[in-house]
Amino acid sequence: MRISRIFQVLVPKEKKFFPLFEADVENIVDAALLLNKLLLSTDPEMKEKYIAQIKDHEKKGDDITHQIFDELNKTFITPFDREDIYKLNSSLDDVLDYINGVALKIKMYKPKNIRPEFIELSELILFSCRELKNAITGLRDLKHPQKIKEHCIRINEIENQADDIYHYTISELFDKEKDAIELIKQYEIIQNLEKATDIAEDVSDVIKTIIVKIA
Amino acid sequence: MRISRIFQVLVPKEKKFFPLFEADVENIVDAALLLNKLLLSTDPEMKEKYIAQIKDHEKKGDDITHQIFDELNKTFITPFDREDIYKLNSSLDDVLDYINGVALKIKMYKPKNIRPEFIELSELILFSCRELKNAITGLRDLKHPQKIKEHCIRINEIENQADDIYHYTISELFDKEKDAIELIKQYEIIQNLEKATDIAEDVSDVIKTIIVKIA
Amino acid sequence: MRISRIFQVLVPKEKKFFPLFEADVENIVDAALLLNKLLLSTDPEMKEKYIAQIKDHEKKGDDITHQIFDELNKTFITPFDREDIYKLNSSLDDVLDYINGVALKIKMYKPKNIRPEFIELSELILFSCRELKNAITGLRDLKHPQKIKEHCIRINEIENQADDIYHYTISELFDKEKDAIELIKQYEIIQNLEKATDIAEDVSDVIKTIIVKIA
Repeated sequence: MRISRIFQVLVPKEKKFFPLFEADVENIVDAALLLNKLLLSTDPEMKEKYIAQIKDHEKKGDDITHQIFDELNKTFITPFDREDIYKLNSSLDDVLDYINGVALKIKMYKPKNIRPEFIELSELILFSCRELKNAITGLRDLKHPQKIKEHCIRINEIENQADDIYHYTISELFDKEKDAIELIKQYEIIQNLEKATDIAEDVSDVIKTIIVKIA
Repeated sequence: MRISRIFQVLVPKEKKFFPLFEADVENIVDAALLLNKLLLSTDPEMKEKYIAQIKDHEKKGDDITHQIFDELNKTFITPFDREDIYKLNSSLDDVLDYINGVALKIKMYKPKNIRPEFIELSELILFSCRELKNAITGLRDLKHPQKIKEHCIRINEIENQADDIYHYTISELFDKEKDAIELIKQYEIIQNLEKATDIAEDVSDVIKTIIVKIA
Repeated sequence: MRISRIFQVLVPKEKKFFPLFEADVENIVDAALLLNKLLLSTDPEMKEKYIAQIKDHEKKGDDITHQIFDELNKTFITPFDREDIYKLNSSLDDVLDYINGVALKIKMYKPKNIRPEFIELSELILFSCRELKNAITGLRDLKHPQKIKEHCIRINEIENQADDIYHYTISELFDKEKDAIELIKQYEIIQNLEKATDIAEDVSDVIKTIIVKIA
């Protein structure tokens, strides 16, 4: 048992991290839903609105991330290993950054087409974020570590699905798209989409580490 | 108070890190100035000279980075948390890597145009590195933590400005540039420029963490 | 002497990490050889076979990586600093990811040409991985730290060679290739190849850190 763990048994654990992480992942789920709406929308005005709303969520997420880091610096006894809180916080922030990145790239690049695979990937991002929310909510009382693990397994499955769609789309793109600039636009957007599910899996890896140490 | 902090109160702090960090950031400021000169220059011979000089600075920076890591491995009591010295060192190294990366890409890609926005961004990188120098110099005696914070705030403002220029230029590029290969060259160079200001902000985040823990 | 080091002197060191790291790097050497064969091959069927085999190695590597992390979470006394085992494990995993990344990109992009420089780089990756294997095998008894250092120096030399080939090829590519989509394909593949030697050097940096702390 590591020294930090011994302390954790003796001293009441600092609980203020849980509401912060819950607010953070809630905000990410909302941003993921907005991204899905953005990709489904064909109305330029609505698109702009969604992009602005995602940006607002990204700012709110940044604030929460900073609050968590501030708490971490001020708190002696943390509910999990300090390094795991650090990683959970920064990897959640990365998920939101990639969601906002997709919105930004759609704004900046104005791609001619939104491929159906983009929409599929945005759905997978949303599903993955919802699983993250369930897993993180479960960390508060830790009564059902098995359930948390199941959420993490589903995130892994979603990532595998996203990977297949990603590889298929890239192959299609390099095979069929003859307009090099359009190819670059689509390529950059799809990479960003895939990366979001990838980082969601990184978050679930951190959660799995936390569960292993505590179980 | 963390255990490492208790030790820091009892034992004289190891001071040899300060001159190393000061030499490191001084070298980075010089490299940033050379990058600005490179982008302003139209003389192919001078350009080559600046690229070679930036490369030399990158090597010098590498040496200092390794010295700091060596000191860190040999030193038991550090002036700040070990992990913060580690992060300060490696993020400073990253700033220099991106500055050198821009120079390298100009050498390798030979873009037809140096956009005015490239020059603006190189100025912002220079301003940001100068603020980093002021902030890092202030870490030595820590008499004015408020002043250090002000330098960090300015780095944040500079990053926001760089972000706006970056987004504007990318939009312009994908809208107006019809030569796909030229677009790739410009795109890669501007991404590298923006990344340099981004990483400078990461350095300032580490500095803010150090200040928070000590104040 | 750091506290973790004092423990290491008093308590028998946990030896189970060595066979895991040796199996990991052995698997990486095999994957690097397959990549070299893939790039040399002109038979589409054999190419597909090599790509599938590299993918299998990547999965096997993932399993070993997870085993090492699991051991790390369960083990109180580690043969080296906990953070160094963490970094050694994840950087080795990155090498394999980049090797698999090259294979995947060849599958997805179907580039018209495999440049001779691609083959040269894949040889350098193989040489570098073999040096890693020798260095990591040497960590077990640590009787010849000087020999381990020599392997690390060779990895550094290989990386410099790879860097020169990389820069030459990128310059050539942007100068001569007029088909923008083919340029993107080649550019992405060569970046991935260069990155693999880069990360191999990161692994050797971790090994050097371990040697310095122990010597």
